[in-house]
Amino acid sequence: MFESVHVIGGDRAGAAIAARLAERGVAVAIGRPPIPESELVILAVPDSEIAEVAQEVHRGRWVALVSGTTPLSALAPHKRRFAVHPLQTLTLDRGPEQLDGAWAAITAETAGARRRARWLAETLGLRPFELADADRIIYDAGALVGGNFVVTLYRVASRLLRDAGAPPEAIVPLMRRTIENDFDLDGPIARGDLDTVDAHIAALEQRAPDLVPLYRALADATRAAPDGS
Amino acid sequence: MFESVHVIGGDRAGAAIAARLAERGVAVAIGRPPIPESELVILAVPDSEIAEVAQEVHRGRWVALVSGTTPLSALAPHKRRFAVHPLQTLTLDRGPEQLDGAWAAITAETAGARRRARWLAETLGLRPFELADADRIIYDAGALVGGNFVVTLYRVASRLLRDAGAPPEAIVPLMRRTIENDFDLDGPIARGDLDTVDAHIAALEQRAPDLVPLYRALADATRAAPDGS
Repeated sequence: MFESVHVIGGDRAGAAIAARLAERGVAVAIGRPPIPESELVILAVPDSEIAEVAQEVHRGRWVALVSGTTPLSALAPHKRRFAVHPLQTLTLDRGPEQLDGAWAAITAETAGARRRARWLAETLGLRPFELADADRIIYDAGALVGGNFVVTLYRVASRLLRDAGAPPEAIVPLMRRTIENDFDLDGPIARGDLDTVDAHIAALEQRAPDLVPLYRALADATRAAPDGS
Repeated sequence: MFESVHVIGGDRAGAAIAARLAERGVAVAIGRPPIPESELVILAVPDSEIAEVAQEVHRGRWVALVSGTTPLSALAPHKRRFAVHPLQTLTLDRGPEQLDGAWAAITAETAGARRRARWLAETLGLRPFELADADRIIYDAGALVGGNFVVTLYRVASRLLRDAGAPPEAIVPLMRRTIENDFDLDGPIARGDLDTVDAHIAALEQRAPDLVPLYRALADATRAAPDGS
């Protein structure tokens, strides 16, 4: 669909996207404009720079966002525009294969733009689903909860293990298996054993009082949240 | 070290432990006392029943806990006692191989008990580390954070994705890769982009106000928590 693509922004997302497109036989240019003619310009720059960089892109090109939050209107005055957000954490330590199997939120305002967004997602190895522009921020909040906050749980859990004299990395097999077991909830909250929850809070008040509000919020949400399936 | 073991309690932990011991050539009996003579009795019953069941065990036997929280004193009047807690989420849908690669907290009061606890952990396929009796509750709080609360994040994230019209399961590859990438923190909080965090909170206030305190507690902890490595 596009035979030449210009990727602006060479950080995590930009690097993986450019490498995958090249692998798929697309002519890829990288860097700031002005740039040799490309049919599609992908803005993989920080959210705060998107509107400004969009101004530098020649009128008439197709322009795409890969951000999860920025609305399509940030690409004005371009009208040939869409967004493809890979729902994945990307790193410069991996190659384009890190896109495989992840999902992608595509946002488009016309049938032609939607077709192009779908082409880009699939060419990248992503599974596309449609996301309305008005739903992008709540979607992005969900992505943060399932991504960044897993890092937070790891840091908190490993801190408590270390405080108990245990190897902090001992939590990792449990975190992995929790996902592999399809988020099956065992343990005290599943059994309605609130004595254990109270004992945890009492121990945290003694040894890690700054974590009490977080523990309480998570325990409350665990009781309140229906099964996600 | 022990050639015959009696496992009381056939739920998740008891079933996996009994199956693994049998696989390793240990004579395993299962069920409540009275029971044919066994050298070791493992109490894999709910925490609230441990002290009562311990009373039913013949004096002079070795007795072991597999709970993460209950103190060794709950096994009184037995003095030949120790604890081995598999730091893993266990399910009846898997066999003893689910113990492989997980860590185990061992707690003992004498050198002989410690040797036996280590033997049990290693025979089960677990990697033992020592945990003082006084540190068991803070350790167990850490295990809950890294296990059960991952389920909570999944439920919350998938609820927000569903609210945005996205497939709730689309969050799973991101959760997996966050672990595989050694909990590398990317995204707005890592970049110091608090505008995006504020935008998430504003969207949650509109569409999922019950989640605002949890989101705030997690975002604050993400900023505060040092790298866990």
